[in-house]
Amino acid sequence: MAKRIAILGSTGSIGVQALDVVSRHPGRFEVVGLAAGKNAARLAEQVARHRPRFVAMADPAAARELQGLLGPGGPELLPAPEGVALMASLPEVEFVLAAIAGGAGLRSTAAAVEAGKTVGLANKESLVLAGELLMRRAAERHSQILPVDSEHSAIFQSLLGHNRAEVRRLLLTASGGPLRAVPAEQLPAVTPAQALKHPNWSMGDKITIDSATLMNKGLEVIEARWLFDIEPRRIDIIVHPESVVHSMVEYLDGSVVAQLGVSDMRGPISYAMAWPERLALDLPPLDLSRLGALTFQPPDPVRFPAFTLAYRALEMGGTAPAALSGADEAAVEAFLAGRCPFPRIASLCEEVLEAHVAEPLRSVGQALEASDWGKQQAARRVMG
Amino acid sequence: MAKRIAILGSTGSIGVQALDVVSRHPGRFEVVGLAAGKNAARLAEQVARHRPRFVAMADPAAARELQGLLGPGGPELLPAPEGVALMASLPEVEFVLAAIAGGAGLRSTAAAVEAGKTVGLANKESLVLAGELLMRRAAERHSQILPVDSEHSAIFQSLLGHNRAEVRRLLLTASGGPLRAVPAEQLPAVTPAQALKHPNWSMGDKITIDSATLMNKGLEVIEARWLFDIEPRRIDIIVHPESVVHSMVEYLDGSVVAQLGVSDMRGPISYAMAWPERLALDLPPLDLSRLGALTFQPPDPVRFPAFTLAYRALEMGGTAPAALSGADEAAVEAFLAGRCPFPRIASLCEEVLEAHVAEPLRSVGQALEASDWGKQQAARRVMG
Repeated sequence: MAKRIAILGSTGSIGVQALDVVSRHPGRFEVVGLAAGKNAARLAEQVARHRPRFVAMADPAAARELQGLLGPGGPELLPAPEGVALMASLPEVEFVLAAIAGGAGLRSTAAAVEAGKTVGLANKESLVLAGELLMRRAAERHSQILPVDSEHSAIFQSLLGHNRAEVRRLLLTASGGPLRAVPAEQLPAVTPAQALKHPNWSMGDKITIDSATLMNKGLEVIEARWLFDIEPRRIDIIVHPESVVHSMVEYLDGSVVAQLGVSDMRGPISYAMAWPERLALDLPPLDLSRLGALTFQPPDPVRFPAFTLAYRALEMGGTAPAALSGADEAAVEAFLAGRCPFPRIASLCEEVLEAHVAEPLRSVGQALEASDWGKQQAARRVMG
Repeated sequence: MAKRIAILGSTGSIGVQALDVVSRHPGRFEVVGLAAGKNAARLAEQVARHRPRFVAMADPAAARELQGLLGPGGPELLPAPEGVALMASLPEVEFVLAAIAGGAGLRSTAAAVEAGKTVGLANKESLVLAGELLMRRAAERHSQILPVDSEHSAIFQSLLGHNRAEVRRLLLTASGGPLRAVPAEQLPAVTPAQALKHPNWSMGDKITIDSATLMNKGLEVIEARWLFDIEPRRIDIIVHPESVVHSMVEYLDGSVVAQLGVSDMRGPISYAMAWPERLALDLPPLDLSRLGALTFQPPDPVRFPAFTLAYRALEMGGTAPAALSGADEAAVEAFLAGRCPFPRIASLCEEVLEAHVAEPLRSVGQALEASDWGKQQAARRVMG
């Protein structure tokens, strides 16, 4: 029987690839709902192709635009902006792909968890901002959270069948991003265009800049900390420019289990969507003989200090990771708009984190407030 | 409670390392029995240290020697040569480490399987000669066979928790052995000393030469075919000189799960011994950053054709793998004794396999006869 799915963030990079997976496996999925932020035109195209029963847009103006584009007999348009979270908890939905970028994805992820859905989590901010809360509620509500990040999907696959108590370390691989080989003294002159040229992965702008600063890997450390319920000191980052080894788990006997694959997000997306089964994908097989060498190096905390802030935020606890995440959103936005140089992203984040007074995390609303506070602090510091 | 174990082949390379694992984990194992071939002196030392209740030697003269070395109040010496297989089926034994080298290990492995023991299988010839029979009997007798080869242990660990029906390929890694970079025209002049210098693994002589010819990898293909019940065309060999990735499993979505580790047989030995748990080993951790590059290349069937014979033997079926294994034992012996040049090992095996008329496999005795026939055929051809 077809799995009844809702895709939140269907017009973004992950959402579009998820729909590609759906199209290539007729009968396997039924697209019950599609939700997006502002891109009404693309959502209308997706509606024509996938015929969902429900649609939603986060932006009220875009929702009105979509209403004009949808003909009679089309899907039900849920009210903006709360319709996105509403869609995540519809009884008609079994599986929610949480693929909205940034802190904006948190409320709908939380709604999916509260409704006990199986969640394919591509929105890392949900766990960065409120991982402690979400994972606790997921356990209480019997909601299964499946990672869609390639790294966390790799760790998930490398933990399956093994004993969690025997894990010594998680090893998150990092491509090192587009600026991996750029010397420290040239980093201030890096342009947004240069920083957006990711060598291996095709992703959204925010995450590509986070990949260049290594903040992405830091956020993934926070995500892994909650997703796999593991102490931060047991999570290490290793730079692996070829992005073939997607991540690894080291067990107490020294044995390391790893997941490898081509750099195509349809791998982890389809894994989460089809879980506990796998889908035959027509990706090119991983041909290690033709790849040449796989290399590894430690991350450089001098040129790319952002990842170290994630460990610091976890140590501060409570609202600190949310504040860091918010600061990073604003700092990346400022960099992309040409309002600050590349190395300023990390230093802005550091200043905001140092100014933050962490409070124990009690609600999703509080996490979002801390993130907003971080954003404002970073934005203010850019101007100043 | 301590796991009650018997080690068959305790004075060989695997046996000695297994006893090292035992010594480093006091209270975890009780050595109920130790059996060896001819080395009475070393077995007597092991008896003094590990105080087994039973000992056995395959060689009757060595058994008499051992009896002289054992003081009063020592272990019970089982009769030679059948005592080795007897030990494998003792009710006092839970776990049998089958670490006798060559075809000589088959009868005791079969005895352990018949007795429904958990078997740590380091003797690959058991499966090469009679894998079809042994695996069927293991299922019937509820005997669990756990691989001790690093490659098969890696595959076992990479299959855990995943769906067998979703396996696309097994990828057995091969170091390529000590002669990997030697040009074809220099192979006839290779001496036993050169061929015995394995770059990564410390193993017995026979297996080190098999590693140099790639016959070892061919025998591992046969082993994997039975151990994991998978068609030979789904088993590929990939040369990986660094021996860090111990082997891999590719699933139908293109995802590859691999097991990595340092090159120390105590890893797979202790994994099998402690299964389903892991033992904390004091091996140096795998430090990928310090290792430099991991490289992969296809195996070269021109310089090292021996591995291709394994696929051919599997295709012939029945007694053919046993005949091939026997031919290889005699050919390696001839090479080590300086009686034939290195490339002759593979061509002898090929000639014997071509001369073999495969019969359906009905008994362990028949498998041993086919292996003996292969040995004699190869030995005769060396002389001729």
